[in-house]
Amino acid sequence: MILEKINAPSDLRGLTLPELEKLAEEIRSFLLKVVSRTGGHLAPNLGVVELAIALHYVFESPRDKIIWDVGHQCYVHKILTGRRDKMETLRQYKGLSGFPRCSESDHDCFETGHSSTSISAALGFAIARDLKGEQHSVLAVIGDGALTGGMAFEALNHAGQLGTRLIVVLNDNEMSISRNVGALANYLSRLRTDPLYYRSKEEIRDVLRRIPNIGPRVFKAVERFKDSFKYLLVNGILFEELGFTYLGPIDGHNIGLLIQVMERAKGLPGPVLLHVSTVKGMGYPPAEKYPNRFHGIGAFDLATGEPHPPGPAPSFTEVFGATVVRLAERHPYLVAISAAMTDGTGLRDFAERYPDRFFDVGIAEEHAVTLAAGLAKAGCLPVVAIYSTFLQRAYDQIVHDVARQKLHVVFALDRGGIVGDDGETHQGIFDLSYLRHIPGMTVMVPKDQSELVAMLKSAIDYPGPVAIRYPRGAGPLIEVEMDPTALPLGRGEVLRRGRDVVIFAVGPLVYHALEAAAMLADEGKDVAVVNCRFVKPLDEDLILDWALKTEKVLTLEENVLAGGFGSAVLELLAARNYRGEAACLGVPNCFLEHGDPRILREALGLDPAGIARFIRSKGW
Amino acid sequence: MILEKINAPSDLRGLTLPELEKLAEEIRSFLLKVVSRTGGHLAPNLGVVELAIALHYVFESPRDKIIWDVGHQCYVHKILTGRRDKMETLRQYKGLSGFPRCSESDHDCFETGHSSTSISAALGFAIARDLKGEQHSVLAVIGDGALTGGMAFEALNHAGQLGTRLIVVLNDNEMSISRNVGALANYLSRLRTDPLYYRSKEEIRDVLRRIPNIGPRVFKAVERFKDSFKYLLVNGILFEELGFTYLGPIDGHNIGLLIQVMERAKGLPGPVLLHVSTVKGMGYPPAEKYPNRFHGIGAFDLATGEPHPPGPAPSFTEVFGATVVRLAERHPYLVAISAAMTDGTGLRDFAERYPDRFFDVGIAEEHAVTLAAGLAKAGCLPVVAIYSTFLQRAYDQIVHDVARQKLHVVFALDRGGIVGDDGETHQGIFDLSYLRHIPGMTVMVPKDQSELVAMLKSAIDYPGPVAIRYPRGAGPLIEVEMDPTALPLGRGEVLRRGRDVVIFAVGPLVYHALEAAAMLADEGKDVAVVNCRFVKPLDEDLILDWALKTEKVLTLEENVLAGGFGSAVLELLAARNYRGEAACLGVPNCFLEHGDPRILREALGLDPAGIARFIRSKGW
Repeated sequence: MILEKINAPSDLRGLTLPELEKLAEEIRSFLLKVVSRTGGHLAPNLGVVELAIALHYVFESPRDKIIWDVGHQCYVHKILTGRRDKMETLRQYKGLSGFPRCSESDHDCFETGHSSTSISAALGFAIARDLKGEQHSVLAVIGDGALTGGMAFEALNHAGQLGTRLIVVLNDNEMSISRNVGALANYLSRLRTDPLYYRSKEEIRDVLRRIPNIGPRVFKAVERFKDSFKYLLVNGILFEELGFTYLGPIDGHNIGLLIQVMERAKGLPGPVLLHVSTVKGMGYPPAEKYPNRFHGIGAFDLATGEPHPPGPAPSFTEVFGATVVRLAERHPYLVAISAAMTDGTGLRDFAERYPDRFFDVGIAEEHAVTLAAGLAKAGCLPVVAIYSTFLQRAYDQIVHDVARQKLHVVFALDRGGIVGDDGETHQGIFDLSYLRHIPGMTVMVPKDQSELVAMLKSAIDYPGPVAIRYPRGAGPLIEVEMDPTALPLGRGEVLRRGRDVVIFAVGPLVYHALEAAAMLADEGKDVAVVNCRFVKPLDEDLILDWALKTEKVLTLEENVLAGGFGSAVLELLAARNYRGEAACLGVPNCFLEHGDPRILREALGLDPAGIARFIRSKGW
Repeated sequence: MILEKINAPSDLRGLTLPELEKLAEEIRSFLLKVVSRTGGHLAPNLGVVELAIALHYVFESPRDKIIWDVGHQCYVHKILTGRRDKMETLRQYKGLSGFPRCSESDHDCFETGHSSTSISAALGFAIARDLKGEQHSVLAVIGDGALTGGMAFEALNHAGQLGTRLIVVLNDNEMSISRNVGALANYLSRLRTDPLYYRSKEEIRDVLRRIPNIGPRVFKAVERFKDSFKYLLVNGILFEELGFTYLGPIDGHNIGLLIQVMERAKGLPGPVLLHVSTVKGMGYPPAEKYPNRFHGIGAFDLATGEPHPPGPAPSFTEVFGATVVRLAERHPYLVAISAAMTDGTGLRDFAERYPDRFFDVGIAEEHAVTLAAGLAKAGCLPVVAIYSTFLQRAYDQIVHDVARQKLHVVFALDRGGIVGDDGETHQGIFDLSYLRHIPGMTVMVPKDQSELVAMLKSAIDYPGPVAIRYPRGAGPLIEVEMDPTALPLGRGEVLRRGRDVVIFAVGPLVYHALEAAAMLADEGKDVAVVNCRFVKPLDEDLILDWALKTEKVLTLEENVLAGGFGSAVLELLAARNYRGEAACLGVPNCFLEHGDPRILREALGLDPAGIARFIRSKGW
């Protein structure tokens, strides 16, 4: 095994090309073995095995800086930078992160998770290098999907103008997570499929030599003609126009070629765009065939490629997808928008049933939300399905374009609350805070899948912007009520009556609250549980009524405490001159690492035992 | 006067070209007369007089939809759509807004204010039109500056792929607010300055006809060659590559030509980019010479172009600019970043003194913040100066790239709180809420200019991300202490002792609190005033101490109440089992219209009399 001898990138440089190629195969096998057990982002990593080897062969990390956009394709990088032995702990509580983490290694120079940040960060490193008079290389490795994110363009635009040394490696696999969309994707596809690239330049020079001289009358036109040499000789005109030297496209699975072109890129003076074609899932037939399914997966059977069977409870995502399809039947102008997450958000069925009413805009959350604003203003009913953490990107568009104009847009925030394996960069623990303070927003959190159906159905008839936030994975119910009665705006429900303490909760934590109340009942404490459903508008009278009945209030949410649901309840109680006790349970003011959500909830005291313990600790 | 007869766009269509040209002159005079009295965005509107006339001549608003990006260039549009008589009330309380407002007119089909939203919104209108089987035109009018914003690119990318009818009018004046930056600006400049545009196409066709036939061996190369016709014949290759038909560039002050080309654009099937060259400030020599100064201005002397002299108190902006220059002397790796607001943020001096350490990234707030993250990670000390309302664009980058990595970036949020004339889209009333809940942030609000200096000086030595938020315009002090002692992290100050009530305030409202306390003292109420300085971390012991002393707490902030400073105080008091009374004063949960900040504060009860009144109303 060559792999066993690679403990640092420098170990690569003693290997021959055939050995590097053998190493690539060993890494693929290793990846498959590990990820089939731990789960993780398999297909993206299978696609960059040769790319990561070549990068670490040519560039000298950590002196040279390699920034992985999104970062879920960093497994090979981790394997090559001394973390091979820890790969078995991938994405597990206190184990290796599935994303670059500076605390793990000096080779992780900048942390990523959300898309399209790498060029901006790399440009920051490059400018700092220049200011300090240093000489190293700085690289951003970015997928063609991530390149559709607007901030990547902002960064290209700035880098093209500054002209400093910077290498952008475009890892072009024609996928973001789903198949890639947008005019840029079409453009890249034309570059890829052009049969003349590379060698044809010589032939074209031949052709040009045969053009006869043309008289002075059309001299200006010929001048322009000469400029067109550039168009003929350079494929990546779009990048060239932005000030980059374009190299490629080259085969991203040919280590020899990669090394050769990277050496060339390293020596070039200004910004370089190196266009590399890779195959997502490369080397594992099930992943090549279904790169989408193998993008991010749980544990699976290595021989068949089949995932371990799910439990019997449908996920919130599935229930959302099925509900939107049903609502679309009755609402002809209901349209659905996804930002490169058609499958992840459960909109696949909708997209197939209503192709004219479905829009996957690519990794472009800002555009997605303002597009929805335009649609709403023009009389459509847009449902925007974006993960909680990614909707952070469109905070301003929600405030400025949707809420300020009181437009009726329904936001479906999947992956709200604790998401688990993906960790810090993906936890949906800020949404209640960043949405609640926006004037006119309605913010709901369903306790289970049936309540999600009811909220979606109701949201169609509420005025203005409505956000529904629900967690990743299976819900508490096995049987889901697909035709529930609509919910009156801003009304909660009392699930358990009690005299001593009242718990105001939202989301599936409502069930934890009920369990905690049952535990405390055994100890003689009579705890009421109210499912508030609405973070905004609050069910003010219901909350005040129960607060006054018990004079001991506990709020419960899977969100940071600052500015969240509990904070809203405190604001209400203060405004109504409540003088009893109140306390809030939720995520403290910190970022939350990766791990099984059950473990994380226990650690935060958000499990039933933790809630009961907290109430006891208050002496209530 | 032709202008007096124009009460709706349809009135334009009876005019001859010379009459339209005369109308343009009349509108310019009218604009100058009005804006020299009211203040406003003069130069952008002088630049689009002919463009707005031609648009309303060719297209039939409100059936056809015209969306003005940013929107501050909508004055001519307002004049032409029946609001001429109200222009004297521009930007005044209850008067006409300086931006498109749907409540003012059916001709304002979508409201704007922040940059780069128009193409997304227009695409939404176009899709809705197609779904409904309607036929009208949809236009986005966007400046070259706004085009550097990433979401404009996201929208171009999506529109180019969808291929539906949509006209993007690129109003290219080589300026955003300051002179434009970025590779895209260079590209546009090349298009503009190409001497061959338009007529040369014929000449080029001549040249191409003279090329001899070439044998079959190089047939493929010739195929490619033929593709290059496109490059020869079409200037706007970058837009063409994204799927747009490119027309232009044409002279944006030639009404006849504008009408002719717009008629052509109207008939084209897919997305069209119409590139129009305009001169910012056109027709008023002082504004042509200093488009920057005349971008957005207060009232000025029409004859000389001189602004009315400012009052004696320096603005927060000026004090910020001067302080950053001083800090840069001692900190060699301090760098400053602006997003197209070099002058607006007071960084002009810095840019001139330290050109290698200053970065204007264009209208690209997302990139600005992640660039800062890269710089910080690489050992620089970035100061990012962005208006409060525009920093909303980079909320995710602050969370994900800066705060999550605990990077030491200083955010200077100018225009925090009530901004006044620009109104709803520009009020900085959400920042305390959207920043406070981010883990690890320090959030400060200076009560006056000297405290701003102290906070900036102190921020250099605090760990992690630090935000300082200060208002637009003159501060309370005439003499500013430019070398104050540093402030300990998270420490407030007691400005007035009192037994009955305590006011916890941040920002210049601290002075209002003191005035209110003086008023109430006359009535025998003994009100303490604490300048908390820090919204995060709170001075917990100081706050708790005074809360317990008085058992009557009033918080005071120029921010929405939901999730803001007062909310933070309530969270603290709940966590510490405080049982006294507490109330919060601030901006209620609504968007805030335009008008003199003094009037707005009075309307919200944030003036000294309002604060005193509120305390009386509580019966404290």
